[in-house]
Amino acid sequence: MVVLRVTLLEGRPLEKKRELVRRLTEMASRLLEEPYEEVRVILYEVRRDQWAAGGVLFSDKEGA
Amino acid sequence: MVVLRVTLLEGRPLEKKRELVRRLTEMASRLLEEPYEEVRVILYEVRRDQWAAGGVLFSDKEGA
Amino acid sequence: MVVLRVTLLEGRPLEKKRELVRRLTEMASRLLEEPYEEVRVILYEVRRDQWAAGGVLFSDKEGA
Amino acid sequence: MVVLRVTLLEGRPLEKKRELVRRLTEMASRLLEEPYEEVRVILYEVRRDQWAAGGVLFSDKEGA
Amino acid sequence: MVVLRVTLLEGRPLEKKRELVRRLTEMASRLLEEPYEEVRVILYEVRRDQWAAGGVLFSDKEGA
Amino acid sequence: MVVLRVTLLEGRPLEKKRELVRRLTEMASRLLEEPYEEVRVILYEVRRDQWAAGGVLFSDKEGA
Repeated sequence: MVVLRVTLLEGRPLEKKRELVRRLTEMASRLLEEPYEEVRVILYEVRRDQWAAGGVLFSDKEGA
Repeated sequence: MVVLRVTLLEGRPLEKKRELVRRLTEMASRLLEEPYEEVRVILYEVRRDQWAAGGVLFSDKEGA
Repeated sequence: MVVLRVTLLEGRPLEKKRELVRRLTEMASRLLEEPYEEVRVILYEVRRDQWAAGGVLFSDKEGA
Repeated sequence: MVVLRVTLLEGRPLEKKRELVRRLTEMASRLLEEPYEEVRVILYEVRRDQWAAGGVLFSDKEGA
Repeated sequence: MVVLRVTLLEGRPLEKKRELVRRLTEMASRLLEEPYEEVRVILYEVRRDQWAAGGVLFSDKEGA
Repeated sequence: MVVLRVTLLEGRPLEKKRELVRRLTEMASRLLEEPYEEVRVILYEVRRDQWAAGGVLFSDKEGA
């Protein structure tokens, strides 16, 4: 079993997330020699006012 | 202190969650010999489009 | 790189979260001698019906 | 699927951990109506110098 | 920024881990249109006596 | 209650970790108006071969 938890800013379209989990699963399954079904992916979609780099929330960054 | 983090699909009724945290706390407290108050439970309720098994989001599974 | 994940009850005002991430970043950067930009903070805001201490959800506690 | 992550101080005997994961699995499976096999438990055993309450590492607490 | 946390059983050779983080980074960067450097991967290598499926520790499973 | 989880490269001296958890606790307690004892800090010390930025493990970076 492998669990991949992906923390990313919210707002990606469903199609993107669908492709992301499929591709990550394929790769982890192949490289780690785990059965396909035993790879689990959880997406943690974080709001821009819940994530900071360099002490500044993404919601406060110019052009964010 | 013990921290239990439970990742589950969202949508369970409150009564279920209430019973779950009570029972998990009782068991962890007893088995690990930790004071009752020192067992903390956090529920991470994940949407069906944020969780995948075998590369497929739960929101895309038939009958999911 | 340092990642700080802060699990807290939801409902704090934006100004509070802004100050929190700034201060935590300053402190971690200074004490751990990491470049300021390399300190990342993620806030996990949890609902009162998703967090329990002593087996009781915060949403069920008197005065919670 | 349900994932339970248990953060606890290291040092419990194997027999204790064995019983803990069995009991937590039974309870989560029953209450959440998840197939037994779909409950996964991960133990994060933390050293006493990696965990603090009230600003003091457990390794620094009297009688810890 | 994207953070991928991979929970896996310990014991993979370094070369495998090296390839895993490289490939996951490439894929996440491309699909999520994040700068390459902004993809961070953390591997949580878990011992067999710290992970259970179906209530049984991997260290207790036949052939595990 | 507030839980701060700090993911950092392993190898910091105990005195540094001691000061880090004390300072983070003071700040979180004050800013979030939580009782001092209710702030918990967990340090996840990660090995250099378990953490990558830009697809490269820290153990493989020059001067790392």
